[in-house]
Amino acid sequence: MKALTYHGPSRRYWADVADPVLEDTEDAIIRVDAVTICGTDLHILRGDVPTCEPGRVLGHEAVGTVQEVGAGVRRVQQGDRVLISCITACARCRFCREGRYGLCLGGGGWILGHRIDGTQAERVRVPYADTSTHALPEQVSDEAALMLADILPTSFEVGIKAGRVAPGDTVVVVGAGPIGLASIVTAQLLSPGRIVVVDPAAARREAAKSLGADIVLDSTDDVESVVRENTDGLGADVAIEAVGIPETFELCTRLVRPGGRVANVGVHGAPATLHLEQLWDKGVSITTGLVDTSSTPTLLTMLANHRIDVGSFITHRFGLDEIQDAYDVFSRPSDTGALKVALFRQH
Amino acid sequence: MKALTYHGPSRRYWADVADPVLEDTEDAIIRVDAVTICGTDLHILRGDVPTCEPGRVLGHEAVGTVQEVGAGVRRVQQGDRVLISCITACARCRFCREGRYGLCLGGGGWILGHRIDGTQAERVRVPYADTSTHALPEQVSDEAALMLADILPTSFEVGIKAGRVAPGDTVVVVGAGPIGLASIVTAQLLSPGRIVVVDPAAARREAAKSLGADIVLDSTDDVESVVRENTDGLGADVAIEAVGIPETFELCTRLVRPGGRVANVGVHGAPATLHLEQLWDKGVSITTGLVDTSSTPTLLTMLANHRIDVGSFITHRFGLDEIQDAYDVFSRPSDTGALKVALFRQH
Amino acid sequence: MKALTYHGPSRRYWADVADPVLEDTEDAIIRVDAVTICGTDLHILRGDVPTCEPGRVLGHEAVGTVQEVGAGVRRVQQGDRVLISCITACARCRFCREGRYGLCLGGGGWILGHRIDGTQAERVRVPYADTSTHALPEQVSDEAALMLADILPTSFEVGIKAGRVAPGDTVVVVGAGPIGLASIVTAQLLSPGRIVVVDPAAARREAAKSLGADIVLDSTDDVESVVRENTDGLGADVAIEAVGIPETFELCTRLVRPGGRVANVGVHGAPATLHLEQLWDKGVSITTGLVDTSSTPTLLTMLANHRIDVGSFITHRFGLDEIQDAYDVFSRPSDTGALKVALFRQH
Amino acid sequence: MKALTYHGPSRRYWADVADPVLEDTEDAIIRVDAVTICGTDLHILRGDVPTCEPGRVLGHEAVGTVQEVGAGVRRVQQGDRVLISCITACARCRFCREGRYGLCLGGGGWILGHRIDGTQAERVRVPYADTSTHALPEQVSDEAALMLADILPTSFEVGIKAGRVAPGDTVVVVGAGPIGLASIVTAQLLSPGRIVVVDPAAARREAAKSLGADIVLDSTDDVESVVRENTDGLGADVAIEAVGIPETFELCTRLVRPGGRVANVGVHGAPATLHLEQLWDKGVSITTGLVDTSSTPTLLTMLANHRIDVGSFITHRFGLDEIQDAYDVFSRPSDTGALKVALFRQH
Repeated sequence: MKALTYHGPSRRYWADVADPVLEDTEDAIIRVDAVTICGTDLHILRGDVPTCEPGRVLGHEAVGTVQEVGAGVRRVQQGDRVLISCITACARCRFCREGRYGLCLGGGGWILGHRIDGTQAERVRVPYADTSTHALPEQVSDEAALMLADILPTSFEVGIKAGRVAPGDTVVVVGAGPIGLASIVTAQLLSPGRIVVVDPAAARREAAKSLGADIVLDSTDDVESVVRENTDGLGADVAIEAVGIPETFELCTRLVRPGGRVANVGVHGAPATLHLEQLWDKGVSITTGLVDTSSTPTLLTMLANHRIDVGSFITHRFGLDEIQDAYDVFSRPSDTGALKVALFRQH
Repeated sequence: MKALTYHGPSRRYWADVADPVLEDTEDAIIRVDAVTICGTDLHILRGDVPTCEPGRVLGHEAVGTVQEVGAGVRRVQQGDRVLISCITACARCRFCREGRYGLCLGGGGWILGHRIDGTQAERVRVPYADTSTHALPEQVSDEAALMLADILPTSFEVGIKAGRVAPGDTVVVVGAGPIGLASIVTAQLLSPGRIVVVDPAAARREAAKSLGADIVLDSTDDVESVVRENTDGLGADVAIEAVGIPETFELCTRLVRPGGRVANVGVHGAPATLHLEQLWDKGVSITTGLVDTSSTPTLLTMLANHRIDVGSFITHRFGLDEIQDAYDVFSRPSDTGALKVALFRQH
Repeated sequence: MKALTYHGPSRRYWADVADPVLEDTEDAIIRVDAVTICGTDLHILRGDVPTCEPGRVLGHEAVGTVQEVGAGVRRVQQGDRVLISCITACARCRFCREGRYGLCLGGGGWILGHRIDGTQAERVRVPYADTSTHALPEQVSDEAALMLADILPTSFEVGIKAGRVAPGDTVVVVGAGPIGLASIVTAQLLSPGRIVVVDPAAARREAAKSLGADIVLDSTDDVESVVRENTDGLGADVAIEAVGIPETFELCTRLVRPGGRVANVGVHGAPATLHLEQLWDKGVSITTGLVDTSSTPTLLTMLANHRIDVGSFITHRFGLDEIQDAYDVFSRPSDTGALKVALFRQH
Repeated sequence: MKALTYHGPSRRYWADVADPVLEDTEDAIIRVDAVTICGTDLHILRGDVPTCEPGRVLGHEAVGTVQEVGAGVRRVQQGDRVLISCITACARCRFCREGRYGLCLGGGGWILGHRIDGTQAERVRVPYADTSTHALPEQVSDEAALMLADILPTSFEVGIKAGRVAPGDTVVVVGAGPIGLASIVTAQLLSPGRIVVVDPAAARREAAKSLGADIVLDSTDDVESVVRENTDGLGADVAIEAVGIPETFELCTRLVRPGGRVANVGVHGAPATLHLEQLWDKGVSITTGLVDTSSTPTLLTMLANHRIDVGSFITHRFGLDEIQDAYDVFSRPSDTGALKVALFRQH
């Protein structure tokens, strides 16, 4: 079959690879019907993720049709249309049993397109299929479902829930890429009083506005002053870091009010400075995390019931064999205006 | 009256100052019967707390007898024996109404011995007396009560509760000064499975052990390995920073397990490095805070019922007019073995 | 001044009474600009509330202008336009300090129009004025503010928050009177997946629908089956009792899923049967409560920012001196279609 | 093999039955080394549990040695010494994935000795063996481990945690049978300020006292007055129902303070009266539940580390083939003084 493989920094090929086969009784082999590219894939291609070895098929977000299941698979059946989650869960380890699948100790966690071959291929082997896929209801389209493979649960769990967003809160989202925009969407499930978004790109600020941001600011604006003016001088209840660089993280720690929460969602490659001499008595909490996808069933139901609208996330569509073009478009968002790209199996 | 006043770095005097008088209808004038010195007082004397101005009477922990109350004081009465809390609460502002008295916006918070004259004096004016003092039951001695003015609620709220210590947890306490030792005592209220304490001073490790630490380590020990060996290689559930320097904070972030909590209690004067490139997907929470003293009534009841033992905290006792000696002893703990010192009114 | 006084079952007078005067340093005298009638007032008039004695001026919900304040009042000033909350808070007792103002031990709680004279009058004395009133921003009209005096915080705190409504939940609201309708409005702050409402009156079902209910059912419908069909046979995540009779409470305990929550908001005059032989292993929680009004500042901000719409609650408007007519209309909702009535001071 | 089978009310036989065999790839066959009898077994023998059919082997608590595992079992291995939990968990259903194993929708929950053959036998088949058994560390004896099969996690999860016991709380435990006594032990993990126990049997009050109860009362004592006197007239923070009859449940609802919690642990066969006319504004929560055994790993560690002492629970010991005698002793506790009985495999 054809697959997109990583061969060291900046080297990716769309090439023939061996078809995946069942390796374990709880595996499923799934035909990929729709797939997307994640910012993390770009990180890998920059060489930032040494745990991802050359030869690896990339991709950890897809919708597909189950073709074959191992003898130990009970819930998923051949022919099922399923969401392939970015997180694989063994269901038996200490963390899985607490609902912390992202921390799985039994060989799961984020492994697809990272430690084992992923979803940017015609077919993919998914371990622990029963607890690592989600049956899709008919009324949820492939395209909408793709937003549930990573960005919606990530923003909701690691941003909104870890940040304990509550009705009436002032929430600042720093960064309006796909994760930042998904944070705007999922924050609204808790009815914040005001969403402030900061991003240097005008197009992304525009997208933020249309998805529900109340105030959008350029990175060159005096963000701290604007937030203070809108919060009786106190600062934001919650600041969500959705970029992944020291500057934006440090901005978040300045924007948050006494007693507030900083929820880091961004993937970081370098340390930040934590101004404890200012923060020690401020009563803040700072959280980090990988998604558990424990919220995926809920988000799926809400998508099916039209409680969440993800219509505007996908800006570019491709055939699966056009994936090299899709990478080109996705990796230059300021030129192309790309948010999320979707690739579909050709019939 | 006599009082200990601060006159700039390293300058403290035991000298005559004007007697405090009622300045507001909700003030009380309280005779100081017992008082202690806090590590924060030493910080002030090093010039680390610029908000504390020369001329200030120091001290924010005391037990006293109410001598006079303003017309607006309802609960506290002349003759009452009370604990003077390190936190003053207006009771009306947003934060006080949420029980976050440490963040009081109405002129309270940590003000005694900081923004207004404090308790290291023969008498002290306490604003918002009804909500800033606690009536003491007869069976709690002055000496025991002093431990409730700051270190017990601070360690319990900012360390144990913010760190969400739960039964069976492995808790690491970095630093075995008064706050670290109080953390050992209050952690046991939640029955952790194991308490590991790290401190460079042998005497403090000894004290930690006698207060309930299961494992005590020198700072030169391979703390990370020991913690990992005791936690199936995962790390501590909770790491409590009770020193206030970058190294110990950074150690805490390395000691904590995936999904664990770092609770910072130490007073910091400099920024730390936050290794987000290692922490972004680790699912940790980091909290900071000043005590609210919302747990003081509970701790007081537990002290009265002998559920908490603070008998070994006070290592040196003085008359109030010997306070300069007490400072000398308290500021050289490695020579003197001092943990907390207590000063008493002479009859 | 004129006031509506209670003189035993079914006897109410609009008559001259003595003007209220400051009795305590923390009192305020407030001119009533707008006031409403609560279902609880009807309970009193049926003789169901023996703690309310004859001669009492009724009413615990109003908007007014401060005319005079005691010497101990700090935040509220003459001329302020304020919301008079149904709950009075001493701010000093154990429960007030925990934010549980409804349980105030210091002479507060629900006292207005109950244990002391209330708001259905030209003027009212409000004790502990600083912590029992809320300054009103200009953009919130008197009429909208009235909905915050009781029904919005009550439904939000005692129904939605106690029931721990979360995004995606199926919420059943039993009873679509003012409190039930307010529950529909405030439930939506947490984005439930589906709101089911049960009420025997077609007009109220209609109102429920227009306020956001997804499914409305008559009391004669097979409510249990409909709820089960919509929840994979499991039952509702949350059932909110908003009537106050045994039948509706018992219905709630049947409607809720294993692991679900029953939040009782209704005022009950008789015991209910609790089928523990069916519930003991079902893992449910049942909560009761009087509102604390701790959510009032948040709800006020959301009203000011147009995050909540209460435009359709008030169905009838009167001058204050037409209050007897207002009672007639309000007490016959099935004839008059009344939800909430508002009475305004004449200029 | 020999097993204790139920054949309708009051009819139990120790007789030959077919040896259990693997029926599913995730089953294990476990040799029973130690087993106990639960009060629920007596309920079954009274005919109170119609879902338990004649012919059933009883028992849902045991320690054993794994003899054979299905092909889909990954963690448990032949020769392992394991605790057989009263709750079986499929690990894949919605509730198992939330850690609510007691509500398992995948064929688990309480099934052993209820819907499938149980542990009062020489061997037992345990479905979903990986997630329904717990490996036992050497330092935990069979006898101690038996206390973890049901009573310790049940009292801790359904009583102490559902009742949100916190340091300093006044906790009333109504009923001092095995579950009530286990509640006393597990309550102490959260350092309540005072534990009050009510039971009509002097021997059980004695046992309660020795396990840590501060005040023990006979059912004929004026329990309400004693609790009030010890709680400033307010009532208990938490009342734990550990009997299972209407009277004791109703007592709990009277004993609890405004804002308090009633945690029902008892197995009920009849409805109770809920005095909503007194409770509607009292701000209480009432919880019910079957154990999830999510706390078992933690309790096991604490037992291994000597943080919990269960030495006095087992009052009588038997060989497995003396099980009929053991039932006789266990079912007449007032004559025999039995708390828990333990039966051991003969070598």
